[in-house]
Amino acid sequence: MHNPRGFTNEEYGARCRTLQAAMAAAEIDLALFTTPAEFYYYCGLQTPFWHSPTRPWFLLLPAEGLPLAVVPAIGAPLMQRCRLRELRTWDSPQPADEGVSLLAATLRDMTKNRAGAAPHIGMMRGRQSVLRMPPADFERVCAALPDLRLSDISATVQQQRMVKSAAEIGKITAACDAASAAFAGWQEWLREGMALSDIAREFQRECLRHGADNVPYLSCGMGAGGYADIISPPDTRAWGAGDVLLLDTGCVFDGYHCDFDRNIACRHASDEVLRCHETLWRATEAGLQAARAGVTCAQVFGAMHEVIYGAGDGDDNQGGGVGRYGHGLGIELTETPSIAAWDDTPLAAGMVLTLEPSAFIENSGGERLLAHEENIVITGDGARLLSQRAPERLPIVQTSLQK
Amino acid sequence: MHNPRGFTNEEYGARCRTLQAAMAAAEIDLALFTTPAEFYYYCGLQTPFWHSPTRPWFLLLPAEGLPLAVVPAIGAPLMQRCRLRELRTWDSPQPADEGVSLLAATLRDMTKNRAGAAPHIGMMRGRQSVLRMPPADFERVCAALPDLRLSDISATVQQQRMVKSAAEIGKITAACDAASAAFAGWQEWLREGMALSDIAREFQRECLRHGADNVPYLSCGMGAGGYADIISPPDTRAWGAGDVLLLDTGCVFDGYHCDFDRNIACRHASDEVLRCHETLWRATEAGLQAARAGVTCAQVFGAMHEVIYGAGDGDDNQGGGVGRYGHGLGIELTETPSIAAWDDTPLAAGMVLTLEPSAFIENSGGERLLAHEENIVITGDGARLLSQRAPERLPIVQTSLQK
Repeated sequence: MHNPRGFTNEEYGARCRTLQAAMAAAEIDLALFTTPAEFYYYCGLQTPFWHSPTRPWFLLLPAEGLPLAVVPAIGAPLMQRCRLRELRTWDSPQPADEGVSLLAATLRDMTKNRAGAAPHIGMMRGRQSVLRMPPADFERVCAALPDLRLSDISATVQQQRMVKSAAEIGKITAACDAASAAFAGWQEWLREGMALSDIAREFQRECLRHGADNVPYLSCGMGAGGYADIISPPDTRAWGAGDVLLLDTGCVFDGYHCDFDRNIACRHASDEVLRCHETLWRATEAGLQAARAGVTCAQVFGAMHEVIYGAGDGDDNQGGGVGRYGHGLGIELTETPSIAAWDDTPLAAGMVLTLEPSAFIENSGGERLLAHEENIVITGDGARLLSQRAPERLPIVQTSLQK
Repeated sequence: MHNPRGFTNEEYGARCRTLQAAMAAAEIDLALFTTPAEFYYYCGLQTPFWHSPTRPWFLLLPAEGLPLAVVPAIGAPLMQRCRLRELRTWDSPQPADEGVSLLAATLRDMTKNRAGAAPHIGMMRGRQSVLRMPPADFERVCAALPDLRLSDISATVQQQRMVKSAAEIGKITAACDAASAAFAGWQEWLREGMALSDIAREFQRECLRHGADNVPYLSCGMGAGGYADIISPPDTRAWGAGDVLLLDTGCVFDGYHCDFDRNIACRHASDEVLRCHETLWRATEAGLQAARAGVTCAQVFGAMHEVIYGAGDGDDNQGGGVGRYGHGLGIELTETPSIAAWDDTPLAAGMVLTLEPSAFIENSGGERLLAHEENIVITGDGARLLSQRAPERLPIVQTSLQK
């Protein structure tokens, strides 16, 4: 065990109070959440059941004190172990009223003491948010509260979650450790001739063996001279001589992600691939040197970009089609901020980020991509790696499957 | 390889035409999708990248012909391999316009030939749907199309997806085979004294070893006399004598789920637990006998319910807090229909379903739950098991960890 599961009540309480202070400043009566990250962050709920789209769940944080949950009855035993003032449940699934009337009534209850004033509710409505309930049902809830005023609190919540506590960093570190160990050992099992889908299976098994709770994200790339993209599922092509393999994983420990990748070549690699890998390694090094409290994401992006493209504009500043050179991570695989030319967010101690440069390689068959990624935490005096640093020179595996 | 990856162009084309026929009947000009299941079902996109909440993706199916996609540039190489008439991309992430203006312009383009008539767009807005884009951005899209008429097509899409093709059934079968093999072999690795979190890791490793592409769903229960719920993540308690263990897994093969569970006891189990397990086994047997084309979900529920509670009303018809005795499955872990007293959907050949009875056991320490689950497909003359049938008598493991 790297650390205990979940967080202390003090930590959940402090998180709620931080958001409540921002809500007070914006005169918001109540925050309403429908998504897994906020359930975990503000009251401690973790469940694989989010994977089932059948039932919506609702978390309500009032102006003061503990949150209240309105959830399907199947969730009651789990929610009773969370930090809540009150739990309301409905029998679910239902053919007609999937929590709508109970949520509307609860929202009325929770805002009714503001006599005369329209209830003002904050929700995740902006960038990187989704509505995890049927949109038509949300309209029904709004229709039941005709004077409702809705505000977007997604930026506030995302800013709060950008800076991680020591306990959060411990969980991300444990996830990184599992993936680092899985990558470190791949000479033991990775062989020329394996199907990409079998490589992906075996890699997931290794991550689990090294302590990951699960592996909800694994993208794969493969090709001579680079790969087409960095977000593909595995296919059944066999890994052959000259092919670069990319595995990009989001392992999870206690609900927190790592997110980094590794490249490895089979038998040999072209000079262009070797050179590009080293350039991306050095770009990451430049990011590592640049990343410290007070420096902006745009500055870190600039330091990495200059290594790849020189002092000029280089490409279109879009990070080789990927759109950025890194991002925050935590309960979600990708969180704010973005390591991008347009993101002026200043780094702060406790932020956990990916550094993720990528570049196109021109081949006879067209453009191919190469990517490189590490995970870091911003400390009091710079940045510290959470992933075990990739080798500067692209590793090459020389062993075949026994036929 | 159980079967090739993805589906034929003919199958995607037939799926689009089926929905287009329903759209024509409802005078809908265009269907707009934001969610992974519909991307896979109508044009063949699979990507683990859905796990990242940063970027929205949009699929547009017009009244006739191939769909069009509006996606972040990072998705272009993957989308180019899908069955599409056209691909439009934007550089993403973006600070201000995350595909909103491009989507609005494309919606205008795709509906403008209906001169004088308001564009009529169908979306997933009803039961079991979500909006996978920022709600505020969706409002901006609507504001850019002031005469837009929105209709809910979720029931239409869900009904279409309820009946699986032979190729879909092949993928679900492969997922079931992986989980069945993992469950069949657990005497090899499951030991008294293992932490539940380690049991969950090892079980995932076994599912992968037996051919699952990944294991996005695994819930765990543990306790003497039953468990508290069936949707918990693993904790770190050690599996001890008398404890019933529940593992409920959604393995995936080529984007399709299995969803079934198994119970196993450590050393011994109480008479109540043994009896309840056999009752649930017999309830499943009754469901298997009842399930055939033309019979309704409510009738299958009734057949199972009678085994557990007798001919009377029994409990509140809510399936022991779980809310139902099974559901559809496929691209999503839980799909329509529901094996519930309120669901009059008639079964049809090609439907793939879970049979999932559960019941409370009264213990000195309070109520505990026991659950049981199999996966079936409706055939021309009844139902066929896809999961390897659980033993009628609760299995008991007698082996300890070496200390």
